[in-house]
Parts: sequence; C-alpha cells; structure tokens
Amino acid sequence: MRRAGLVLAALLAFSLDARAEAAPPAGDEAAIRALLDEQMHAWNRGDLDGYMKGYWRSPQLSFFGGGDRTHGFDETLARYRRRYQADGRVMGTLGFGEREIEVLSSDAAIARGAWHLVFPDGKRMDGLFTLVLRRKPEGWRIVHDHSSM
Amino acid sequence: MRRAGLVLAALLAFSLDARAEAAPPAGDEAAIRALLDEQMHAWNRGDLDGYMKGYWRSPQLSFFGGGDRTHGFDETLARYRRRYQADGRVMGTLGFGEREIEVLSSDAAIARGAWHLVFPDGKRMDGLFTLVLRRKPEGWRIVHDHSSM
Repeated sequence: MRRAGLVLAALLAFSLDARAEAAPPAGDEAAIRALLDEQMHAWNRGDLDGYMKGYWRSPQLSFFGGGDRTHGFDETLARYRRRYQADGRVMGTLGFGEREIEVLSSDAAIARGAWHLVFPDGKRMDGLFTLVLRRKPEGWRIVHDHSSM
Repeated sequence: MRRAGLVLAALLAFSLDARAEAAPPAGDEAAIRALLDEQMHAWNRGDLDGYMKGYWRSPQLSFFGGGDRTHGFDETLARYRRRYQADGRVMGTLGFGEREIEVLSSDAAIARGAWHLVFPDGKRMDGLFTLVLRRKPEGWRIVHDHSSM
C-alpha cells in the first residue's frame, strides 16, 4: 500500500504539473478582450475613470508612453487628464487594429496591436501598444502599458 | 496505509502547487540579464548577428519599433541592417537604464527599461523598451520587442 500511495502521489503530481503546462482556458482570452473593449467604450463616451478600470489600481502600475515612464495608477490617470482633458482638449474616438492576446500562464498574459485616435477636427493619431496583464483578485488587469506612436 | 498514501499525495500536490506559485528561481532573472548584456556587448562590437542571438529565431518573432510592426526573425534582422548598417550608417554604442526583469511563470518573463544609443558624431537616441521572453529549448529568448523613442 505504501508503494501504491507513492504511485498515486506521483500520478497526482504529474497531472498537476501537466495542468500547469496545458493550454489556458479560452475564457481568459475572452475576459481580456472584454476588458479592452470596455476600456474602448468608456474612452469613447469620454469616461476616463471607466477607461482606467482596465488598469491595476496600484502604485506599481507601469506606463511607458512614447518616451516617458509613469509609475502608479494615480500618476497614469493624471497623465491622461493632462493630455486628453486639460485646456479644452478632447479624448477623440479610440479604436484598435490587429489586436492579439496571448495568455502566458494561469495569471499572466500580453495583448498587443495597433491603436488609433480620431479627433472631431479630423486629425488622427496612430500607434502601437504592448500590454502586460496579470490576474488579480478583482480580475485581469493591465499592470504595464507600453504605447507608442 | 491507503489513507496515509492519500495524505502524502495531498502534501505532494500542495507542495507542487505552492512551487508553481512561489517566486521563480533567481537563476531565470540572472539568465535573462546575461542574455540582454550579451546583446549589448555584441551590438557594441558591431556584431549584429551576435545581437540577434537574443531573439527567438522564428517567423513568429514580433518587433514593434516606434510606429511599425515587423513579423519574423529574418525581417527583424533586415530592419536592423537597413537602419544601422546600410549606406555607411553606424550602430553606435548601446546602453540600458533602469532595467527591470520580471519572471511571470516558469517559461515567461518581461524585461523593460530605457535604452540609449550614442553615435561617434555625438548624436544620441533615447527610448524605452518592453520585451516579452519565453523559455525555449535553446534558452530564454525575446519573442516580442516593443522599442520606442
């Protein structure tokens, strides 16, 4: 029986390890896609606080925007306010292109692709983004955003 | 004894799960740091092929450089050649700043920070990078590079 117990332990251990290596459930990718879609919809109704719900609400949130680095959720929100709401600025209409989501493990994923902003005066900004997401108790959240033009 | 076997199995299972959640070995971070250092040294001796050894040699390699996306190892190498070796161009001296490495799982990690290039004529380029690395049979390799200025 002792030996049977060890075999059982080994089998259990193997199946747990196998689970860790197995393809993550499609649900994670769908959840991340929904998170980014919600961000887009929030942005497009001018709801910056709603948009920010996609980010990890932590001083450890990291944002690389073009050439400058921002640390922390509050600082990232302040940066968005300065750039898209201060002095009569407008947020414009946000869209994504060729978005790819890759779940790396049970609690880590990346999303990448193109973004564009179209403004009422017809001006347009185009860029690329790479997001690192982690599964937090509150759900998947962006912990690092690198967006460039 | 059957019960003891199950307890043993449960303990083993628990310890394996705990291992999966525990901090990854410092060896992974050191290996990634060494990979990036080797890239820097190769670049700085003008060895583009050596520099490229840090990248996954795959058509699925992804490179976001400023506003443009490149797919594939060969295409990424060609992009570097065009920008830093064609028509008498020089590669300059590459350095990193405030580099952070975060191991996300047993086979995934990110590295991010600042990069700079200094050219013989004194010109300087500064930017940020986010790298996604995966553990491949040949070792840790960059599978996605987002570099911006």
